[in-house]
Amino acid sequence: MLASIAHRTPPRTYGPWEQVASTLAEGLVARGHDVTLFATADSITRGHLHSAAPAGYEEDESVDAKVYEALHISAVFERAHEFDVISNQFDFLPLVFSRLVTTPMVTTIHGFSSERIVPVFRAYDDVAHYVSISDADRHPDLTYAETIHHGIDVESFTVGAGDGGYLLFLGRIHPDKGTHDAIEVARRAGVPLVIAGVVHDADYFRTLVEPHLDGRAVSFVGSVGPEERDRLLGGARALLHLIGFDEPFGLSVVESLAAGTPVIAYPRGSLPELVTDGRTGFLVQDVDTAVDAVARLDGIDRAACRAEAQARFTSDRMVDDYERLFTRIVLG
Amino acid sequence: MLASIAHRTPPRTYGPWEQVASTLAEGLVARGHDVTLFATADSITRGHLHSAAPAGYEEDESVDAKVYEALHISAVFERAHEFDVISNQFDFLPLVFSRLVTTPMVTTIHGFSSERIVPVFRAYDDVAHYVSISDADRHPDLTYAETIHHGIDVESFTVGAGDGGYLLFLGRIHPDKGTHDAIEVARRAGVPLVIAGVVHDADYFRTLVEPHLDGRAVSFVGSVGPEERDRLLGGARALLHLIGFDEPFGLSVVESLAAGTPVIAYPRGSLPELVTDGRTGFLVQDVDTAVDAVARLDGIDRAACRAEAQARFTSDRMVDDYERLFTRIVLG
Repeated sequence: MLASIAHRTPPRTYGPWEQVASTLAEGLVARGHDVTLFATADSITRGHLHSAAPAGYEEDESVDAKVYEALHISAVFERAHEFDVISNQFDFLPLVFSRLVTTPMVTTIHGFSSERIVPVFRAYDDVAHYVSISDADRHPDLTYAETIHHGIDVESFTVGAGDGGYLLFLGRIHPDKGTHDAIEVARRAGVPLVIAGVVHDADYFRTLVEPHLDGRAVSFVGSVGPEERDRLLGGARALLHLIGFDEPFGLSVVESLAAGTPVIAYPRGSLPELVTDGRTGFLVQDVDTAVDAVARLDGIDRAACRAEAQARFTSDRMVDDYERLFTRIVLG
Repeated sequence: MLASIAHRTPPRTYGPWEQVASTLAEGLVARGHDVTLFATADSITRGHLHSAAPAGYEEDESVDAKVYEALHISAVFERAHEFDVISNQFDFLPLVFSRLVTTPMVTTIHGFSSERIVPVFRAYDDVAHYVSISDADRHPDLTYAETIHHGIDVESFTVGAGDGGYLLFLGRIHPDKGTHDAIEVARRAGVPLVIAGVVHDADYFRTLVEPHLDGRAVSFVGSVGPEERDRLLGGARALLHLIGFDEPFGLSVVESLAAGTPVIAYPRGSLPELVTDGRTGFLVQDVDTAVDAVARLDGIDRAACRAEAQARFTSDRMVDDYERLFTRIVLG
């Protein structure tokens, strides 16, 4: 299991790629597989940990990303003969090593940061086994083995009553995530907004978010760990997920459903695959329709949201899907 | 032959790593070796050219460095079984592929951009064959096969009379290269200065170089091709090479010697290996002693400078050295 090394695996707070690598590695260990997790030295696993990087390069500035990415990836391939299959949760760089070993590699594509990286995926399309994380995120030039939606530990989320009297924004503070639209929708709906997440775009935060923070109508609680996230989600009337890009998958969306909290989202990228309009939230076109949706939240059954998460987005289902795919590839 | 892909091989103007790769590749072809040059698609060789990158990433902004470096390096290793030896003129990244093939690789270390890259060199010290480009540039943690000074096509330089009535700065415009010290030395010596080279630090150029440009006492001619460089070197009384860092090798220094032009330099890094104080120039401690050295230039025999280049810094000598090393490694 080749994790990204931007963060620890599992991540302390933010780190979706590392979270998926951890969920999958621990799920496979629980099923009796012999798993070696390649991740930062401070990572935690019940499998075997192999670390080339002392810490995540986003978490320790002494860690040079280019240097430790190279050492980290080569470590996997130098031991490739020991493994039946390599699960690549790292992005495109491991692909360029893949023809040098005989062990098959399954590459989960966690979205395309830019069209500029597509040439590498294209160059290894013949030997790679690509997994898309939503049907929406498939690139027309590539051949995919399967779409596997991410799964989470749904049981670790408490079904909340949604009676905290606020709407929630949960995610990176970045234009892509639509923090500013969430502020406007909450303001016009007359419901307080709680913003939780790590600031990924300081200019955006300073100009379009910070001026609205008053601790009542709009409050900012920063990055939150699992317990605080569970409490915030459980008390929220809805999650506002008014993204400004074609999001390949929304982990916070399925976390919200696990807490029984409906999601109001723009139908971009994977969102139509995650939210069922009128049943687990609303897919809206703009700020106006999002404000309307807030008024219609009483029509959503929170138990239905939780049931959707249990049916479609558990880590067990994700591990099942990968286990089946790995077995199929190993058996050829 | 694995060249860097920042620039074309050979470079149009600037590109020392690509220049060395080209000199070595063409020299080996001339001796009858079967050479495949891995370089940008616009590169020129009498050997076989294999290109993953359409152009240099410093020359074409549509070329993503990380993407094409990865495709470029993997191309070599996927064909490694075809070669007796791989000559790596690319820096540290190819090392992490090297344990996955049996073909030996000789890595020329063109200096350490930062101490942060040393962990990779250290991790592959047992299988790598490192070449230092000067004794001064050896890192205490690494094991080296040999020091091989770069060589140039000395015969392509004309021995000039040095009667142009100016001092020359030739190199990147950057604090490391001491352009500002060259200006001060020339001013205090009362000799005009010609500055030739590509601007690598725009702030530095704007604040410490540009204000002195008057077209007479200090003039700037930008980046120059081979003919203009030959003419400028031949007419110069001396090259001012007042570097601000431990330069691993100075190609412009040996080019100057090839043109019969003495070099006034600070004795940092490789410079004591390149300039013989009092015979091919002067090794000076500071601006004061550099100004004194300008007054003593009549004591330097330009023929001795040329002879030094012919004896120690020809491409033939460099190709000899590498050919001997490659043979030794291939024969084990």
